[in-house]
Amino acid sequence: MPAADHRPGMRGELRDGEVVVGGDARQRFHDASGYGRPLEGDSIACSRVEAAHLLMRGDLEAVVDRSDSHSMGFRAFVEDSAAASDAFPVRFLVYADLRSRGFYLSPAREGWVDAANDVDFVVYPRGKGPGDGEVAYRVRAVGERASVPATALGDRTLAVVDEESSVTYFETEAVSPSGGTEGALPEGVGADLLGDRALAWDPPEALYGALFYGQPLGDRDAASVEALQLSLLEAAYLAARGAVAVDGGYDAVVDAGRAVEGDRFDRRLRAYAALREAGVVPKTGFKFGADFRTYATVSDVEDLGHSERLVRVLPADHAFLQRDLALDVRLAHGVRKEMVFALVPAGDGDVEWLAVHRLTP
Amino acid sequence: MPAADHRPGMRGELRDGEVVVGGDARQRFHDASGYGRPLEGDSIACSRVEAAHLLMRGDLEAVVDRSDSHSMGFRAFVEDSAAASDAFPVRFLVYADLRSRGFYLSPAREGWVDAANDVDFVVYPRGKGPGDGEVAYRVRAVGERASVPATALGDRTLAVVDEESSVTYFETEAVSPSGGTEGALPEGVGADLLGDRALAWDPPEALYGALFYGQPLGDRDAASVEALQLSLLEAAYLAARGAVAVDGGYDAVVDAGRAVEGDRFDRRLRAYAALREAGVVPKTGFKFGADFRTYATVSDVEDLGHSERLVRVLPADHAFLQRDLALDVRLAHGVRKEMVFALVPAGDGDVEWLAVHRLTP
Repeated sequence: MPAADHRPGMRGELRDGEVVVGGDARQRFHDASGYGRPLEGDSIACSRVEAAHLLMRGDLEAVVDRSDSHSMGFRAFVEDSAAASDAFPVRFLVYADLRSRGFYLSPAREGWVDAANDVDFVVYPRGKGPGDGEVAYRVRAVGERASVPATALGDRTLAVVDEESSVTYFETEAVSPSGGTEGALPEGVGADLLGDRALAWDPPEALYGALFYGQPLGDRDAASVEALQLSLLEAAYLAARGAVAVDGGYDAVVDAGRAVEGDRFDRRLRAYAALREAGVVPKTGFKFGADFRTYATVSDVEDLGHSERLVRVLPADHAFLQRDLALDVRLAHGVRKEMVFALVPAGDGDVEWLAVHRLTP
Repeated sequence: MPAADHRPGMRGELRDGEVVVGGDARQRFHDASGYGRPLEGDSIACSRVEAAHLLMRGDLEAVVDRSDSHSMGFRAFVEDSAAASDAFPVRFLVYADLRSRGFYLSPAREGWVDAANDVDFVVYPRGKGPGDGEVAYRVRAVGERASVPATALGDRTLAVVDEESSVTYFETEAVSPSGGTEGALPEGVGADLLGDRALAWDPPEALYGALFYGQPLGDRDAASVEALQLSLLEAAYLAARGAVAVDGGYDAVVDAGRAVEGDRFDRRLRAYAALREAGVVPKTGFKFGADFRTYATVSDVEDLGHSERLVRVLPADHAFLQRDLALDVRLAHGVRKEMVFALVPAGDGDVEWLAVHRLTP
């Protein structure tokens, strides 16, 4: 049913992509409900998305196109707006979803609000509106089939509209891994490359037990040979520091890594090394489909807590597919870890870290 | 420490890729512990993997190469075996892992056991051995970087050795979705294509409420227009059956789908239709990074249980990357759903369904 203060017959006029609403629109729609931007007098200018929402709610009865005077109800205005911009359906659905969650929000159109690039909406804290100068989320609205460059993320909320028009929100932020794992590395532990892994023989106990490199081979209670299985990443990192001695040295390990993973091995090694240098222990994230799970501080593997983060390593120019992002973030959420993407530049330069969380606004 | 019955000095002889062990090896290693295959007398022939395991345990002291009489301990034999076959390290790690879990198992080498293709080991039920004629798992051992064709799966256990040499097991089996969702479709509900989705106007209530097509648009308690948001898959399926009427008909919907997804749209539509025809309701699996979540039986969306399965649609000639498989299966496990892959043939022919579970042997 229409709201009690619904005024049948209220109309907007479509001019240059905006919908101008007169009468007492400023007080009724802007001041009281956060729609549009004030014009002179009591009129406001609404974006198409806002006008469509007012039409859907029955607060506007029609929008009249100034150029040809034809009058549009909700269905016709939605069709007209979708024809005018491919981005309209997705933006409208995000706008409507945030409204239904009790937020006021403004399109981040140039001149409307002070917004950075790559933002579609500025969302105000619940109970606040356009005039209060506070921002809860800067939202970019995309369809699930859109790809979004990693460089456009961080300090943004991504609102993804899936094919059935539900909206999933991802909060993205830059982070800096740091941990407290420390201890001296041994020197020249003998190791063999065996296909896409390595075996270190008779390593000092601390290499595994305190620093958490590798995995012991064999049953611990059998008369087993003392050997430590190392990943090629671990072997390369340790070989570069003289801690393990492999035939052919560091280069042979990196060659073995590149043979099975190509450039990806170099990227992963840079992320691995950056984490170790920050005192964080990266171990394989294979069981979670990630590159690493990480432990901020390890002092004794017998007394190991849960890993805190999952890390996927990507080239810095990576563009995220929303379905892949949803998969990673949902999995991390389910195992109570934080999903972090390591973005590795092609040239020199530091690895950057992007944390992504699911958000329920 | 060596086991009490360890006999120092017991040696094997490497002949043509097998290790022959004499003395009382048949009774000691085969009959009592499931190693090797019996030869004449009390000798046995072990695969390299089995011999390496006996060396690691200290049950064999050395293997002597018949061709040049040089003697190898565990480390030398492992290096020699890895040089002889790239597959050795991964197969050895899987063999050792299953042994440490209390299983006896045999290499599925031709002439050794009666095994189908694509199987590395035949694993016997706990407490059983090679002579008992029972099989618990048919195991294929792969490294995490290997890709495995979908056609090689089903009735197989995949043992994946990750880069740190831990083993993850996936059970694969063919399944047939079936459900009990039924009800007549309406005729000719008017709908508009809006980018990569559709809106149906004034649909009969049962289309959403009983058959679970689409999602209602707008706040339910506002004076909202009655419209149902449909995915392009839903719109195409309904248009093909005359249930919705879109400008340009079914072809226009499929064109819109192909424009945003290419061939993938056709594959997903075939899987979608096969599920609906089987009485199963597929809805988007976006929040789980999948193509669909499915409900076997829906009669009222107000009384909807949890979806039972996640479905990812793939071409039938797809080769699985182990990390992707681990991600999907781990996520499904975490949300208590079954992960199912829909394998869609390029030509005519039925969609096949492959369920994959994590297994702890």
